[in-house]
Amino acid sequence: MEGMPLSMGGLRTLPWYVVCSQVLGVACVVITGVWLGHYRGGYAWDGSAQEFNVHPLCMVLGLVFLYGDAVLVYRVFRNETKRSVKILHALLHMMALIIGIVGLVAAFDFHSSAKIPHMYSLHSWCGMLTFVLFFLQWLLGLGFFLFPWASAQLRSWYLPLHVFFGLLLLAMSVGSCLLGITEKLLFNIMSTYSKFVAEGVLANILGLLLVCFGVVVGYVVTKEDFRRPPNPEEEALSVHFKTLSEGEIPSSP
Amino acid sequence: MEGMPLSMGGLRTLPWYVVCSQVLGVACVVITGVWLGHYRGGYAWDGSAQEFNVHPLCMVLGLVFLYGDAVLVYRVFRNETKRSVKILHALLHMMALIIGIVGLVAAFDFHSSAKIPHMYSLHSWCGMLTFVLFFLQWLLGLGFFLFPWASAQLRSWYLPLHVFFGLLLLAMSVGSCLLGITEKLLFNIMSTYSKFVAEGVLANILGLLLVCFGVVVGYVVTKEDFRRPPNPEEEALSVHFKTLSEGEIPSSP
Repeated sequence: MEGMPLSMGGLRTLPWYVVCSQVLGVACVVITGVWLGHYRGGYAWDGSAQEFNVHPLCMVLGLVFLYGDAVLVYRVFRNETKRSVKILHALLHMMALIIGIVGLVAAFDFHSSAKIPHMYSLHSWCGMLTFVLFFLQWLLGLGFFLFPWASAQLRSWYLPLHVFFGLLLLAMSVGSCLLGITEKLLFNIMSTYSKFVAEGVLANILGLLLVCFGVVVGYVVTKEDFRRPPNPEEEALSVHFKTLSEGEIPSSP
Repeated sequence: MEGMPLSMGGLRTLPWYVVCSQVLGVACVVITGVWLGHYRGGYAWDGSAQEFNVHPLCMVLGLVFLYGDAVLVYRVFRNETKRSVKILHALLHMMALIIGIVGLVAAFDFHSSAKIPHMYSLHSWCGMLTFVLFFLQWLLGLGFFLFPWASAQLRSWYLPLHVFFGLLLLAMSVGSCLLGITEKLLFNIMSTYSKFVAEGVLANILGLLLVCFGVVVGYVVTKEDFRRPPNPEEEALSVHFKTLSEGEIPSSP
């Protein structure tokens, strides 16, 4: 695409996509906060429905917004050293994990207090699967890429899987949030949801904004023009040594 | 990755992934049919709840299974001419579209008969957005790639967008189905869903199988090793003329 007159997606557009993703991400967190704060009685940590409200807020903040930003760092910090960006990527994911654990505890606590069985819904199955895979992916990422335990061959083999599952888990996080929104609305406002009440419309808009955030992050990360430029000196010392020495072009996540 | 001793995903594994995708896809259609046939009173076309049952069956068959298979043809028929595969891709998508329209009519018909407002839920918003984008993508695909209306430059510009939105719409189709499953279960078995009744567990399993189908199709389509080999004679006559003449490697969808 580069150098083509019709290319409308050169590197100069990257900042706009990044700004767009951040506006969407912040909007999602704020709308989740307002929805549960204004319409669902706010927040608490006492086993009540207000403790449950901590769950969606943590999941949108941690497993969507911070997770998405952790994925974006490889495109945003294009000229920093690979190692610095890797550390930032791992730290943002760690924050997402910790906030996600708080969110999970809030849901389980509320279910226990209200004598509601755990893990019976499709939302809980998809959400838990996403969280467990995310935790495994984070551990594997640390082991393969941040610490020098894995051979260059193993790293090169794992890299495309890490990238594929990274984007898949972002999609699964967004999807799990939408399932959770649908559950919450049907539990709380089933009789008025079809009358287009403000709470239902606001939560629907939240769902669409979550999809848009995922789409923009996915687009930025997969677009060829936005890839990190290979840095031969850095690459030669890092995971792609073998690939480089065989004359192939290294791919960066 | 090619030629690496640790590569565990060479071209020889492609048939296994394709078989796996077809088993998952057929299982999804059969389980949807059994769920609605056995637990929800079967099928009809009279404005009743049985007419509504046509909706999920059509959406899973058309917008997930056939859509996924339409995406897969570029990997399955690797050695057929590009033009034949394009025609098959467009035909499968057209079948998906027609079956999707029948599914939409069933849902709207049922809502009208039962005096239920249309388009109020997050499922309906996401589902309709997916369907409209799918229809636009199909029209653009026809115009850009199958008929000789677009210049080679325009085609090269649109190709990566077509591929990105193709996979996005598969994810959105699967996500919309999961939202629909959650809605249907909460409308019909809210009081017993948390007791792990057979219908709820079956529908949850259907949800996970739909995700697995999407994941396998997405993996096959994005894996570098499974790409169509470039055919210089064919390429020179087709969309990538300009790219080839500039010495770049053409990418195929």
